[in-house]
Amino acid sequence: MWQLYQFPLCPFSRKVRLLLGEKGVGYDLVRESPWAMRDEFLDLNPAGTTPVMVDADKGVTLIDSQAICEYFEETIDRFPLISGTAAGRAEVRRLVAWFDQNFYGDVVAPLLHERMKKRIVHRLSPDGGVLREAMKRANTHMDYMDYLLDHRSWLGGGTMSLADIAAAAHLSVADYLGGIDWTGHDPVKRWYAGFKSRPSFRPLLSERMEIVAPPAHYDKPDF
Amino acid sequence: MWQLYQFPLCPFSRKVRLLLGEKGVGYDLVRESPWAMRDEFLDLNPAGTTPVMVDADKGVTLIDSQAICEYFEETIDRFPLISGTAAGRAEVRRLVAWFDQNFYGDVVAPLLHERMKKRIVHRLSPDGGVLREAMKRANTHMDYMDYLLDHRSWLGGGTMSLADIAAAAHLSVADYLGGIDWTGHDPVKRWYAGFKSRPSFRPLLSERMEIVAPPAHYDKPDF
Ligand SMILES: N[C@@H](CCC(=O)N[C@@H](CS)C(=O)NCC(=O)O)C(=O)O
Ligand SMILES: N[C@@H](CCC(=O)N[C@@H](CS)C(=O)NCC(=O)O)C(=O)O
Repeated sequence: MWQLYQFPLCPFSRKVRLLLGEKGVGYDLVRESPWAMRDEFLDLNPAGTTPVMVDADKGVTLIDSQAICEYFEETIDRFPLISGTAAGRAEVRRLVAWFDQNFYGDVVAPLLHERMKKRIVHRLSPDGGVLREAMKRANTHMDYMDYLLDHRSWLGGGTMSLADIAAAAHLSVADYLGGIDWTGHDPVKRWYAGFKSRPSFRPLLSERMEIVAPPAHYDKPDF
Repeated sequence: MWQLYQFPLCPFSRKVRLLLGEKGVGYDLVRESPWAMRDEFLDLNPAGTTPVMVDADKGVTLIDSQAICEYFEETIDRFPLISGTAAGRAEVRRLVAWFDQNFYGDVVAPLLHERMKKRIVHRLSPDGGVLREAMKRANTHMDYMDYLLDHRSWLGGGTMSLADIAAAAHLSVADYLGGIDWTGHDPVKRWYAGFKSRPSFRPLLSERMEIVAPPAHYDKPDF
């Protein structure tokens, strides 16, 4: 059985969990706080990041959310998530990198730092200026997502792909942390409402991080 | 014919160029300075980053170095660079992400900022403290590379892979910028000396960025 090292608000672990859910791969959750830099965890992954997946029976350790997703895409035929032509697959990977790097760096990382890590590690309250800047950037990202969804059925093209999963993973963490204003983003809102009712998404939406509570609309399919 | 938008010290463009060289794919270079944020370039790539590859005849635009590498890995059979078992391929991708994110963030990005961008954009001289910290981190990364090369023929396993290419790309930019002290890193030094004499690497080593000159040993196969 696979074990997935993660914590409830890690967007990269959510991306992996959504993919595993769609592909029907079973796994056990292992709670890991990467900021604690536990020795045993650093032995497992010298980068010290979640997610990490381990299958002790197979003797396999997988590190880095994209390497993990590509692994299951290659080994599990069910529900291909990087499919189509080579150029179409490149477009999916471009968008995954966009959400994992730009959306994460502009929006999710500052929100996680201000509203979660600062509280846990330093017992400090968040910096309002940083929060406002992250929300402004979230808005710009959602304008781009609106634009994509005005031209395509899904973010990466005609079918649901890993681009949608990566986007939903990051957006859901930003929404939990109060960083998303849905006003004026009907295309993204419709797309995300559909995502929220997928069986792969429901378990994630019901989990809580002890130190910070989500806004009331967070787990409602109708918001 | 493919066009590659890049500048001489972009490590992600070097990674793509090394892969294209090994696979024998031809391309024209287009000089692009992402920090100039040229409108036409932002229209091509909203993320504003190099590398970007365009084949006007095919009507294909490729963005993000990893999406580009996966595209050519899928479409060109010659010299597979993400090969072996699914677990072996995951290990290659883990290391590529390690170099593209950790080595780049810890070492290459601060060096590029201090020794190139600050000079070009702000006409300021580098901050010695930041340079020293980047060099210290480079040293820690090279300890890890020594460790890998003590246990394997190549960084990612038994054969040369995209992990070696990503590592050589980032290391070469750090070396150009004076950030690498080779003393005490014999395994990495031997591995890199071999890399430097590959035909795919020679053209990169002969290019210069107007504003900053490399140390004397930079393009010597024997250093
Ligand atoms: N490229 C990695 C990035 C993973 C990552 O940055 N994870 C965060 C948690 S969301 C982490 O572990 N950061 C280290 C820390 O917080 O100390 C991946 O895709 O798995
Ligand atoms: N994930 C991208 C990262 C590319 C990247 O960060 N490129 C740098 C140049 S080395 C860049 O364009 N930065 C934007 C800037 O300097 O304004 C890739 O792998 O292609």
